[in-house]
Amino acid sequence: MSLAMNAATVPTPAAGWLVIAGLGPGAEGCVTPEVSAALADATDVVGYIPYVARVAPRAGLRLHASDNRVELERAAHALRLAAEGRRVVVVSSGDPGVFAMASAVFEAAEAGDAAWRQLDVRVLPGITAMLAAAARAGAPLGHDFCAINLSDNLKPWTLVERRLRLAVQADFAMAFYNPRSLARPEGFARTLAVLREACGAAGSAARPVIFARAVSTPDESLRVVALQDAQPEMADMRTVVIVGSSLTRVIARAGRPWVYTPRSAPPEGAA
Amino acid sequence: MSLAMNAATVPTPAAGWLVIAGLGPGAEGCVTPEVSAALADATDVVGYIPYVARVAPRAGLRLHASDNRVELERAAHALRLAAEGRRVVVVSSGDPGVFAMASAVFEAAEAGDAAWRQLDVRVLPGITAMLAAAARAGAPLGHDFCAINLSDNLKPWTLVERRLRLAVQADFAMAFYNPRSLARPEGFARTLAVLREACGAAGSAARPVIFARAVSTPDESLRVVALQDAQPEMADMRTVVIVGSSLTRVIARAGRPWVYTPRSAPPEGAA
Repeated sequence: MSLAMNAATVPTPAAGWLVIAGLGPGAEGCVTPEVSAALADATDVVGYIPYVARVAPRAGLRLHASDNRVELERAAHALRLAAEGRRVVVVSSGDPGVFAMASAVFEAAEAGDAAWRQLDVRVLPGITAMLAAAARAGAPLGHDFCAINLSDNLKPWTLVERRLRLAVQADFAMAFYNPRSLARPEGFARTLAVLREACGAAGSAARPVIFARAVSTPDESLRVVALQDAQPEMADMRTVVIVGSSLTRVIARAGRPWVYTPRSAPPEGAA
Repeated sequence: MSLAMNAATVPTPAAGWLVIAGLGPGAEGCVTPEVSAALADATDVVGYIPYVARVAPRAGLRLHASDNRVELERAAHALRLAAEGRRVVVVSSGDPGVFAMASAVFEAAEAGDAAWRQLDVRVLPGITAMLAAAARAGAPLGHDFCAINLSDNLKPWTLVERRLRLAVQADFAMAFYNPRSLARPEGFARTLAVLREACGAAGSAARPVIFARAVSTPDESLRVVALQDAQPEMADMRTVVIVGSSLTRVIARAGRPWVYTPRSAPPEGAA
């Protein structure tokens, strides 16, 4: 009874909907069928220029490409279109819920028009960059791990550094997004310095670091070095960096080594 | 020159290959095209019974289904088949690199026949359970987070507990795999107790916990409660549990709330 009354007082948002979709790391073979279906059914695609460029134009489809660093405006635009009854797909690379557009959309929905909260909003997951990178290298994230966005646009460096030290204490493998930009090249150098200090000399000699750039695209490259040999210049903004735990192993072979973290950890205090 | 000599001394493994593929959380709409293509080209599919059951039988395809807890035997079997020249897909649910078969295959390859290391082994990523669960709830993993396998089959409980406490200190959102089994129902109760202690009473009242069961299947259910109200019985082995960070927000609305973690964190020491 009260539910029915609620339904009657909330304005019905025509047939509009908003999907926040992950396009995966780059290859078409990594786009899920449910994401392709949503794009085929959309009237509007909203996103950062290079991601919108991955969507094939067709009659009846409006493409709204915008520059980086306007995530909240873009999110509000998408919500407004859906509230007007349009079928909107916000495109992210990778997975939209990992350092991408989904949080921005919910942030805009919370701050914006109360009617936006009643919209049909769905998040469609995608293959996030760290999992594409891990797959290419072997299975470095096969045991407990953490994911850290190294961009300090959105949080203080002191917090990043504290998380790095705690992640070493917890012996997590680590995946880093946005390790390095032209605007802040020094952050990643500091990251490597903190990790070397926290891991010690022996740990830095043994622990592998994977630099995975543009995985699944024609620009793909992958490099595995010891933490002690890792250089800031090995990463750019298209690179995901994975740092092994103390248990991560490198299997030498003809060609690229395999890197994996065993599923099991020994009893605490064991040699 | 030395490379050519190496190539001549290593036995060439016919045209066999081994793919370790992620089938995603359950729905066909979450299986990537590259995984479907590998399955279409395979001569043999190897995996845990319910995952092999997801592969349609066809002429010329051998299905090798095995029980749980025999991961290393299964991995060695798959490597042996590939070394014999077969085209083998090892199927995992979710992503094969996250608490699944990829680590077991590389572990078996490292311990086994030296020729296995020269095989063509590829890992094809999939939608892992925590990202499917996060997508359904909103964007709870939109800021830094960690993933912990709560099964203590493969590691000591003291290590799990230490990681939980450090993850709270780091203020990570957390995703838990394998939270609870019939064989060890007490582990998840202890997890909740450790988190409540580490977060304090105010933190436990504010912090959301998401119980996401069998996401994308007909058995899907999703429940959001405060940490203080979370009960061990809310999880089983088909459940992924996500615990928010101190910044995770719940947006009340008609129907299920949206849960998201903002992209940005305030300056350290801010109120």
